[in-house]
Amino acid sequence: MSADRLIYMPLGGAGEIGMNAYVYGFGPAGRERLILVDLGVAFPDMDGTPGVDLIYPDIGWLAERRDRLEAVFVTHAHEDHLGAVGICHDILRAPIHARKFTADIVRRKLAERGHADRDAFTAQPWPDTVEAGPFRVGFVPISHSVPESSALAIDTPLGRIVHSGDFKIDRDPVVGDVFDEAALGALAEPGVAALMCDSTNVLSPHAGRSESSIGSNIESLIAGCKGTFVATTFASNVARVKTLADAGARAGRSICLLGRAMTQMVEAARASGVLTEFPATVSPEEAAGLAGEAVMLIVTGSQGEPRAASAQLSRGPFRGLCLGPGDMFLFSSKTIPGNETGVLQVINRFSEMGVDVVDDTSGLHHVSGHANRPDLELLHKLLKPRIVVPLHGEHRHLREHVKLCNSNGLDAVLAPNGTMIDLCADSPGPVEHVEPGRCYLDGTVRIGAADGIVRERRRMAIGGHVLVSVLLEEDGTQIGDPWCEVAGISEELPDGSDLAEFLQERLAGYMKRTGRKALAKMDDDDLKGGVRKTVVDAAASAMGKRPVTTVIVSRLSD
Amino acid sequence: MSADRLIYMPLGGAGEIGMNAYVYGFGPAGRERLILVDLGVAFPDMDGTPGVDLIYPDIGWLAERRDRLEAVFVTHAHEDHLGAVGICHDILRAPIHARKFTADIVRRKLAERGHADRDAFTAQPWPDTVEAGPFRVGFVPISHSVPESSALAIDTPLGRIVHSGDFKIDRDPVVGDVFDEAALGALAEPGVAALMCDSTNVLSPHAGRSESSIGSNIESLIAGCKGTFVATTFASNVARVKTLADAGARAGRSICLLGRAMTQMVEAARASGVLTEFPATVSPEEAAGLAGEAVMLIVTGSQGEPRAASAQLSRGPFRGLCLGPGDMFLFSSKTIPGNETGVLQVINRFSEMGVDVVDDTSGLHHVSGHANRPDLELLHKLLKPRIVVPLHGEHRHLREHVKLCNSNGLDAVLAPNGTMIDLCADSPGPVEHVEPGRCYLDGTVRIGAADGIVRERRRMAIGGHVLVSVLLEEDGTQIGDPWCEVAGISEELPDGSDLAEFLQERLAGYMKRTGRKALAKMDDDDLKGGVRKTVVDAAASAMGKRPVTTVIVSRLSD
Repeated sequence: MSADRLIYMPLGGAGEIGMNAYVYGFGPAGRERLILVDLGVAFPDMDGTPGVDLIYPDIGWLAERRDRLEAVFVTHAHEDHLGAVGICHDILRAPIHARKFTADIVRRKLAERGHADRDAFTAQPWPDTVEAGPFRVGFVPISHSVPESSALAIDTPLGRIVHSGDFKIDRDPVVGDVFDEAALGALAEPGVAALMCDSTNVLSPHAGRSESSIGSNIESLIAGCKGTFVATTFASNVARVKTLADAGARAGRSICLLGRAMTQMVEAARASGVLTEFPATVSPEEAAGLAGEAVMLIVTGSQGEPRAASAQLSRGPFRGLCLGPGDMFLFSSKTIPGNETGVLQVINRFSEMGVDVVDDTSGLHHVSGHANRPDLELLHKLLKPRIVVPLHGEHRHLREHVKLCNSNGLDAVLAPNGTMIDLCADSPGPVEHVEPGRCYLDGTVRIGAADGIVRERRRMAIGGHVLVSVLLEEDGTQIGDPWCEVAGISEELPDGSDLAEFLQERLAGYMKRTGRKALAKMDDDDLKGGVRKTVVDAAASAMGKRPVTTVIVSRLSD
Repeated sequence: MSADRLIYMPLGGAGEIGMNAYVYGFGPAGRERLILVDLGVAFPDMDGTPGVDLIYPDIGWLAERRDRLEAVFVTHAHEDHLGAVGICHDILRAPIHARKFTADIVRRKLAERGHADRDAFTAQPWPDTVEAGPFRVGFVPISHSVPESSALAIDTPLGRIVHSGDFKIDRDPVVGDVFDEAALGALAEPGVAALMCDSTNVLSPHAGRSESSIGSNIESLIAGCKGTFVATTFASNVARVKTLADAGARAGRSICLLGRAMTQMVEAARASGVLTEFPATVSPEEAAGLAGEAVMLIVTGSQGEPRAASAQLSRGPFRGLCLGPGDMFLFSSKTIPGNETGVLQVINRFSEMGVDVVDDTSGLHHVSGHANRPDLELLHKLLKPRIVVPLHGEHRHLREHVKLCNSNGLDAVLAPNGTMIDLCADSPGPVEHVEPGRCYLDGTVRIGAADGIVRERRRMAIGGHVLVSVLLEEDGTQIGDPWCEVAGISEELPDGSDLAEFLQERLAGYMKRTGRKALAKMDDDDLKGGVRKTVVDAAASAMGKRPVTTVIVSRLSD
């Protein structure tokens, strides 16, 4: 008889903020029945992932064990927790459980990728539970920035695990569930074998503030603005959207939502019944007809995304709306590292238009949706887990979270992506390691980060691209000299001469040195390699660039 | 008789932090004699300028008026103020004046680009002056983070201009000149027509702190570290390098400089005599032979640059030095917007190695080299200028600086890059506008930002690149079907079929529809356009990507 074990392995989210995907398993080693908690995306940037649409975790390990996968549980309706459920559904084909609003969003994600919604199931909150093989999973309401956020109580034959999901301590949230200390404390009664815990804000030393603390500040800001007032935040931050809209309505303005994600999210939240008493809104066309001081726009683009409403407005009239001196723009949001350049571009364009911009420097108009350091300590104390496993963070956050636990006399295990740990071992620690990976949705194609496709794009973006066409007859006789075209590289050398001609000359020399007989016999790959080396060496010495070089060899037969 | 005017026009630096270049002119309109203050670079990023080595201002306007350019004055030895003097010297061919240390660096820049150093002149500090046409320019010592930083007193027939250069108020700098309130105040005696003023930190509300305020904090940090202590800062922040080295020496450690820029800058500063009493250093080889707790490394890479020493150390052993648990890494620097991703990658890799990282969050181990808001107000008060013209900042900084002046009852003019203002008009304001531009050093080639070369690279990085070779006989008969190669795009379509084959099929159809006779007569550009459209439409519908497409048409003659 082999002993059962209770395993945990992050496939994403423990090494970055984004693309959360956490596997739990129970059973004999190598034959555990599995569940997956969350299946989210991360967002690309021009730096590392140019042209990519979405990033999601490599679920290859899980796909190979699909017959052992009982279900997927989604904690809440943020893209970094459910953005990949549609992309991966044909691979996993497992039932997906979530609370009502979240399940509605899951169904939209499935529909977007052409999947029927029969695999999406609406769960009731704790103390109701969902059975999935050896697991019994309860959705425990917890406060965050989107309605129906849940921690998960995962009961197993070896004890209870609590998976915090994203959370903050908010005793007066604007929408969604209250942080209910008593209810969470009650979870600890049978004992908590392990707490898997959000680490996002472990570096923020002060206790977090309630969503309700910023409404009046925002209202004052609006009241002081003589023109159009515009605010941006993540559309999926439903609480903030309501805070903003309520403040605008109290200041006597008509509210107008701008940007597809913004209108869709508000519509979805209202349809699910989680967003009530939302002020009446006017269309962009109606807003354009009103005096500026009568209008508040709530728009997409808090991260400076070039096609979102904020960037559009910073470039000039957008949907009939036009900003200028006297208008004010509020970033009710934090700039995510990597997005600073885009956000600053928007701010500087507004500055050129004479629009006053307010960002989150003061702390008056934005609060985080995640638990800060003292808040994490409170959850640790409430749940009294045997061990804490930090998740939802970059490596520096996870490591700091472990240190925090240890400094409070609490055991904690550092388990970055791909680290499998046995949660109920005498001394829980890594038992297996899977090479973690990431995949890209590129247009409508799924590619692996390790495929080299994006790497080649980055290489072209750095060095440019030279194309060479070589025409040969079967006996190796050249039909004309090799022909070059260049893209993304200067057509002129520093001395003013033509790059393509210069390369063609060098290539003609290479072909001549190689000789007709050798060219006839030569493997195409060898010939391409020789051409490539000639081009790269020549460009490097003449202009200090090493272009990607692609060679087409055409051998004509009679 | 046409009236003389005194003009000012920024070509760079008033619209970004970086690539400073400010033109002054005196004389009849359109025939002014000109001087240029500073000629710096900005640094590229993968987002907007992939593959580019350096960015510098478009000096085309000045090049066209080279016969009227008297001289170039360099305020201090930072790359954003002198990095382009070598790149542009064959275009401007004007004498370059700077104080000793700065002039040494200018000579290095000229030598790097193969120019003789006969055009670099060493100036003595104020009250000495340099005559340049109608201008008499004095280098007024001012405190900043590099030795021999200067404000310029520019005397003209229409009065005195003060050009602040980069400065901070530091009454106890570690190296370089003290902020001498009396001397600066004395500049105002004949009256100051205009103060052209640094705007970098106008958004920082509190008075700046002295470089000397952080040494003991850094020493304490080092003393608390049980392993190797590593610190990074800009090599050109000579004051900080000395602060760090002194703290390390006081803590009893051997100092080792790592990274080419770091060793070169310290060497140059010592050779010029501006850096004295610098602790003895050991080589990396010697440091590798010492116990960790006996060593302090001062390294390049404060901005996470992938090839700099900090990034190298975060990836494993570098020059025999290897970091691990117990070691500590200090960023004695601020992360420049746009560099966050690179810096965080370094921090997370150190976290994985068990190295503790300290950044500038606490404010204990870094101070800015620029004047904060109250410091700017102090300079305004000392100099009592008729007007202030903000420079050295993004648009948001310049605009805020104008607002600050106005709120103190001081006239100020917003003059972004390309705006020419007449400083002595009754109401100084824009009189002409030149389209500002930027140029790139790409490898060793100079290209214009507007040339489209980098834009094409970015398009390849987003969409990938498809190459098509079409072979035709003179009469339009095809020799084989069009051939495709793809780069930076998935070779497989979502349905698993081959992209190149799919495109070739579509292209065969296009060629067939076009017909032999039409192909024979068709202009090559039209044929390429048709091929390109066929490829892009097919890729867009099949995989949601719009690749850059390059076509080579080869027409064989008998």
